[in-house]
Amino acid sequence: MSPQAPTADLKPGDAYVQSFARGLEVIRSFSARAPRQTLTEVATRTGLTRAGARRILLTLQTLGYVESDGKLFALTPRILDLGFAYLSSMPMWDVAEPVMEQLVEEVKESVSAAVLEGADIVYVLRVSTRKIMRNSLGIGSRLPAYCTSMGRTLLAGLPDEEVLRLLRSAPLEARTRHTLTDPEAVLARVQQARRQGWCLVNQELEEGLLSMAAPVVNRAGRTIAAINISGQVNRTTPRQMQESMLAPLRETARQISSRLTGA
Amino acid sequence: MSPQAPTADLKPGDAYVQSFARGLEVIRSFSARAPRQTLTEVATRTGLTRAGARRILLTLQTLGYVESDGKLFALTPRILDLGFAYLSSMPMWDVAEPVMEQLVEEVKESVSAAVLEGADIVYVLRVSTRKIMRNSLGIGSRLPAYCTSMGRTLLAGLPDEEVLRLLRSAPLEARTRHTLTDPEAVLARVQQARRQGWCLVNQELEEGLLSMAAPVVNRAGRTIAAINISGQVNRTTPRQMQESMLAPLRETARQISSRLTGA
Repeated sequence: MSPQAPTADLKPGDAYVQSFARGLEVIRSFSARAPRQTLTEVATRTGLTRAGARRILLTLQTLGYVESDGKLFALTPRILDLGFAYLSSMPMWDVAEPVMEQLVEEVKESVSAAVLEGADIVYVLRVSTRKIMRNSLGIGSRLPAYCTSMGRTLLAGLPDEEVLRLLRSAPLEARTRHTLTDPEAVLARVQQARRQGWCLVNQELEEGLLSMAAPVVNRAGRTIAAINISGQVNRTTPRQMQESMLAPLRETARQISSRLTGA
Repeated sequence: MSPQAPTADLKPGDAYVQSFARGLEVIRSFSARAPRQTLTEVATRTGLTRAGARRILLTLQTLGYVESDGKLFALTPRILDLGFAYLSSMPMWDVAEPVMEQLVEEVKESVSAAVLEGADIVYVLRVSTRKIMRNSLGIGSRLPAYCTSMGRTLLAGLPDEEVLRLLRSAPLEARTRHTLTDPEAVLARVQQARRQGWCLVNQELEEGLLSMAAPVVNRAGRTIAAINISGQVNRTTPRQMQESMLAPLRETARQISSRLTGA
């Protein structure tokens, strides 16, 4: 399904759209750093007036999505019904999880799945190894597409002009000394990923972190997700990773793709 | 944080609250059975008029939470930001996951964590074994509290009158021939769980399924979550489960509780 501009009779500036957007912004203002917030903190973080923030917090409390002791506000687990509606609406995950678990068993490294959201990747599934040094990224967390193996794999499913538009939508940060920060240079790697059907990213996101990804493709031939294996340079080299893990990774992505029914 | 009734100047019937509630209802109408819906389907599932459903879908589309090909609507991964806001706002999970992984390693059965939401438990973390027969419950999924070990453990953290109120809020369904369906009988098990600090539920949720849970308690002494181990009667008996797994389960819950910092 390709995104399409909404019809002209509803604009981002509409009062109705605005108030709904602000409600969702209030939800998103809660985080690990701000698990419980006062009214003033919510107002500051969202740019709302105190009166506006109060109205939205009380609305969320009335609906059971927020609880409060009168001073501090916190989200309730009812919030998960919203994200969970999305996850459960993607039939691929029931299919993907057991196949990904077999891959973890085989390669002894963590395996994840992500989808593209603008210029970011969003994690939708993760199967971790029992190793102590492990990737702590959970479901719903985001990373930029340009410097991650799943990101480049997902970008490879888009036309070049769309890839460049996304790469130019925000400055490409040099997260390590290896990170490619020129959109044209990243595009070349995306094109390589498209040609070969996989990609490996060597410490461009984080020093010491290696990652290799392959696409999950639906019956219409559209890339809908990516699967990756992540490793550590102190345990494996890019060459070793490619030799021992590329074939099982691609086979896993192929199996998930072939089992998708109309996704 | 104990839930408190919202202030009197905002009622569930308010226009603003209503419109926000309807927006969230539209999000929740998408599921594994209805991953892509037409305008008419959304209207039918939510009880909205076509015009009302259209206005909300276009709002969600404008905000990037819904995409459409013009006819079918689907949620986008941006929705996961909402659930992620909740999960990342609970500091316990970073602490809990490695401890739960050690428990899986030790007992070779799946381990989960859940919190109470009304009369339901909501899964917030799951560490599965690599066995083929495994519990397919993911994060955000719900089960009733009355017939689950985590549910009874969480209810044990509430006063008896509150437990009875929740147990009487909906009929207790006989999910198997073993399920207790009398609120007073369930309360007796909840009281037992409170006295002994753990509970075991034998095939009351599902034939063949055993489950044993212990509470996670914060510094204020409040039960904030439960941890469980689930097993299958064809691999273990309740007595074996108790002899071999109860001590490690309670130790895991104790470790998570002791590492909580102000949660």
